[in-house]
Amino acid sequence: MRFCSHCGHPITVRIPDGDNRTRACCDACGTIHYVNPRPVVGTVPVWGEQVLLCRRAIEPRYGKWTLPAGFMEVGETTREGALRETLEEACARVAVGPLFTMIDVPYIEQVHVFFRAELIDLDFAPGEESLEVRLFREAEIPWQELAFRTVAQTLRLFFADRARGAFGTHVHSIDAPTKPVQAGRS
Amino acid sequence: MRFCSHCGHPITVRIPDGDNRTRACCDACGTIHYVNPRPVVGTVPVWGEQVLLCRRAIEPRYGKWTLPAGFMEVGETTREGALRETLEEACARVAVGPLFTMIDVPYIEQVHVFFRAELIDLDFAPGEESLEVRLFREAEIPWQELAFRTVAQTLRLFFADRARGAFGTHVHSIDAPTKPVQAGRS
Repeated sequence: MRFCSHCGHPITVRIPDGDNRTRACCDACGTIHYVNPRPVVGTVPVWGEQVLLCRRAIEPRYGKWTLPAGFMEVGETTREGALRETLEEACARVAVGPLFTMIDVPYIEQVHVFFRAELIDLDFAPGEESLEVRLFREAEIPWQELAFRTVAQTLRLFFADRARGAFGTHVHSIDAPTKPVQAGRS
Repeated sequence: MRFCSHCGHPITVRIPDGDNRTRACCDACGTIHYVNPRPVVGTVPVWGEQVLLCRRAIEPRYGKWTLPAGFMEVGETTREGALRETLEEACARVAVGPLFTMIDVPYIEQVHVFFRAELIDLDFAPGEESLEVRLFREAEIPWQELAFRTVAQTLRLFFADRARGAFGTHVHSIDAPTKPVQAGRS
């Protein structure tokens, strides 16, 4: 951020009065531009023993497999956003169920939230951001070809909970990788 | 948003190629300025039978009672943010426990997340944003003097879960009030 989005004046980065961390401040109009982590919302869409995954048609992680998920939009709830992303990426209609994972990814300023979901029918298809959409049994999950670590962690927790016969709600965080990776969602 | 925060050029509000909703777009440098809901994080700090509340020294809702909570900062996890807000607003040290509520407030573009927490000691005091900090038994909660509806809902759920002897994780959403209220957090 280099210019004030309210008045167009150049930004000064400083600690505002009464605050304790640096912010993008406009000394012309007085606006303080706060920046907050962004929620990413998605589902674990289930059909019997199988889970639906999407192969990404966009960067980052072009060609890798993901659960349907994306940035939450203003004016919607987390559940509505998860439903929307599932429809957009997989053209899949789901009944959104309980909150399953909330995974903090502080080094990229995101919080990933996944709900369990039941597919309502099998009329799914690749959306504009997907190359391919298909159902996977646990033994078929392409663990080495998953797009994001929050997706891998959510799937691991899902199959572990299913094996023990009880689904929980899991809060985790993911640290920055120790070696450089491609920029984008974790 | 009226000016591009990257280059200072006036913003055009339009639907970008490949998107399906209007965004603040810069036709000079090409930046699309996405806006996402903001996470608010806090705790339900418990000491035996009692819950700690803070009386607000700032607007909105000056003088009203709240659970310690505030906007999540970049670079922290939801749990770290909840711990920080509890320390800042109540000078209280807590052991942060399980996720308790996630409450969407779409009409003000926020998601409020509360963790259960145990006070480590009784050395709490008003922080800069609080007039007063004290412990309340359930019968003492100033229900008519609570600052935000997400706080009231979290407290109602807390006492209901405590009464039945089992704490869950609750996902709710709050609609816009039907009559005008003061601007600010729900």
